[in-house]
Parts: sequence; C-alpha cells; structure tokens
Amino acid sequence: MLKLFHNPGSCSLASYIALEEAGADYEVVRLNMREGEQTRPEYLAINPKGRIPALIKGQGVLTETPAILAYIAQAFPAARLAPIDDPWAFAQAQAFNSYLCSTVHVAYAHRLRGSRWADEESSFEDMRRKVPRTYAACFQLIEDGMLRGPWVLGDAYSICDAYLFTLAGWIEATGVDPKQFAKVHDHRERVRSRPAVRRVLARETS
Amino acid sequence: MLKLFHNPGSCSLASYIALEEAGADYEVVRLNMREGEQTRPEYLAINPKGRIPALIKGQGVLTETPAILAYIAQAFPAARLAPIDDPWAFAQAQAFNSYLCSTVHVAYAHRLRGSRWADEESSFEDMRRKVPRTYAACFQLIEDGMLRGPWVLGDAYSICDAYLFTLAGWIEATGVDPKQFAKVHDHRERVRSRPAVRRVLARETS
Repeated sequence: MLKLFHNPGSCSLASYIALEEAGADYEVVRLNMREGEQTRPEYLAINPKGRIPALIKGQGVLTETPAILAYIAQAFPAARLAPIDDPWAFAQAQAFNSYLCSTVHVAYAHRLRGSRWADEESSFEDMRRKVPRTYAACFQLIEDGMLRGPWVLGDAYSICDAYLFTLAGWIEATGVDPKQFAKVHDHRERVRSRPAVRRVLARETS
Repeated sequence: MLKLFHNPGSCSLASYIALEEAGADYEVVRLNMREGEQTRPEYLAINPKGRIPALIKGQGVLTETPAILAYIAQAFPAARLAPIDDPWAFAQAQAFNSYLCSTVHVAYAHRLRGSRWADEESSFEDMRRKVPRTYAACFQLIEDGMLRGPWVLGDAYSICDAYLFTLAGWIEATGVDPKQFAKVHDHRERVRSRPAVRRVLARETS
C-alpha cells in the first residue's frame, strides 16, 4: 500500500491522478497547508523539506513531483503512463515535467510565496505583479511547441498530462485568460474528462 | 555523437561530467551566456527556453538537467551512473536531482536573475540579500540528511554527485563559507579528485 501526502488544489494533485490512473493500491492523507500542517514536526520527520507531495512505501519516503510521477510510471508498467522502455523518449517526458517543476511552478510560487526569496512587502508586491506575465510566458512556450497534441507526448496519455493539467488549473488565479492558450485549454478539458481524473476530482471536492 | 550546449561555470557542468563519466562519444559547444548567446535566434531554434544545457542526438533535443542526467545514466548502463534497474532507488536519485533543480538552483538564481520574477531594483537587492540564507538552508538540508555518504546515494557514485558538485561549487559566490557544511565540503573534494571530473575541469579552464 502506497500513501500519498496531498494538499487539495496543490501540485500533489498530479501524483494523485497518476496513482489513480495506474490502478495502484494507495491511500491519500490530506495535509492542510493553510494551517501549516506541512511544517509540523510530525510531517517534517517524514519530509524535512516541509513540502508536498510525499509518497510513502513501507519505510521509504519519496518526494518531488517529477520523481514520484516517474516512479509511478515505472512501477505500474501495465498502465503505460510513460515510454519507459525508450530512454530518450522517457527523458523527454522527464524534461517536460522538470520544466513544469523548476520553471512553471516556481513562476507561480512568486504570487503568494515571495517570502521564500525576499523579505520586503514591496518585493512581494512586485513579484505578484509580474506573475501574470511570467506564467503566461511559460504557457505560451507550452502552447507553441511543448504540447504535441492531443497529449503532451503525442498520441499517448502520460504522467506529463496529469502534471500539465494540474498547473494549467492555476492559470485563472493569475488573472490570465486560459482561453488564450487554445491547445492547453483543450488539453485541460481532455484530461478532465478521463474517468480516473473525474474520480479524483470528485473526491477533492467532497 | 551527442552534442552538449554548455556554458562554463553554469549548471550544464553536471551534464558535461556525466557524459565524461559515461565514456560517451560527445562534443561540447560552448555558449557564452554573458554575451547572451543563449537568447540568439540560432540557439532559440534549438531550445526555445533560451537556457542551457541542451543535449543533441541526431535531430532530437533534450533539455533540463535532471532529464539529461537520467538519460545519460540509462543510455550508458555500463557506467553505472544510477540504480536504473530499481524504480524506487532510481526515483530517489531523481528526487535528489529535482530538488537541486527546482529549489537549490532557483534559490541561487535570485542572486543575479531577479528580473525573471520582478521588475524593481529594490526587489532585486532584497532577493540578493536573502540568497546567502536560502542557499545555506538548502545545503543544511543536504548536509543533515540528503547526502548519505560517501556519495549522495550511499556507496555508489551517481549522476547526483556530479550535480551536487556543480551547485555546491557556487556556495562561495553567495558569501557563505562552504566549510560550514562538512559533509558537502568533503564530497566536493571527493568528486573533484575523480579522473573524469579532473579532465572536464582542466578543459573548462583551458
């Protein structure tokens, strides 16, 4: 039994969807990040970084969304969630996820998490003002070339789709109109209509 | 023949070391980032993100350090640069590299690349002032638990070591004394003394 530490609405949704798509035997533990549960000693003993997601397997802990997604794809090969038998193609999936993690998510984090990188309220305001531009620039790159269509990697659904769906779900919160990225917008609806994703989203709001 | 786009002193050093450790047939193309070569049309046609590294194989382009490192480990299994036959152990390597990419490198980038996330000079100064604290906090986490020793993953050298060596090489530039992280400091010297690393570093300064 795998256990996923998850905060509804956060990036851990991607791992949640991947577990559901994989048909894994898993349970979800919700952490309330608004109440700071991710920085309590009980959780820091699991993940000293104080972030989600964390995936537990026996005594082991795995963190970082790209690593968790790649693990799920490799551990449940029958679900065909990544081209795991072709190192170059698998690396392309990893490159996409790494971009989402280290550039796209980071751009978004400057909206409400500016205190990670600065101290002054004026800096936080400056960062917040720029997020619509930086977040839109990321999605323009995705729209223009990274999303091959109909799925991120082309004809086959993969872990990349769950992750893109998750971060694309934050576009509205930046004040940007998601419809200006037509391919990304269509992709979101395509992912949202998948049975596994519908099951996860129904639990998110229950 | 693989081709690596590299800027001396930048994070692409990790991929350079991994290629050398793997015994790959490769060549290095130096981009001068101070002169903005990474944003010229010729390079943007290769990597629209305008960042390094980029690894070229035939007509294909692979970006993002964690993806390139994982690819090298999988494509050159005889070099044993990652536990590629064990999905959980491989994922731990990916998690380490993902942390370096999305948290540690990002923390450092606020020193000179604040304009990625803000517009005001006062914000850039604020960000620069905080880098010694954020970068030191990252290396404290690595020191306290992530670097198992003698190598990142324990007994076996891996792609993670080349990447940690690269980012640990930036500690001095933040004004932090690298010796306050004794394990990381020892690890740096251990990596530096490897024959493949010595060959790469000799070329870097030539």
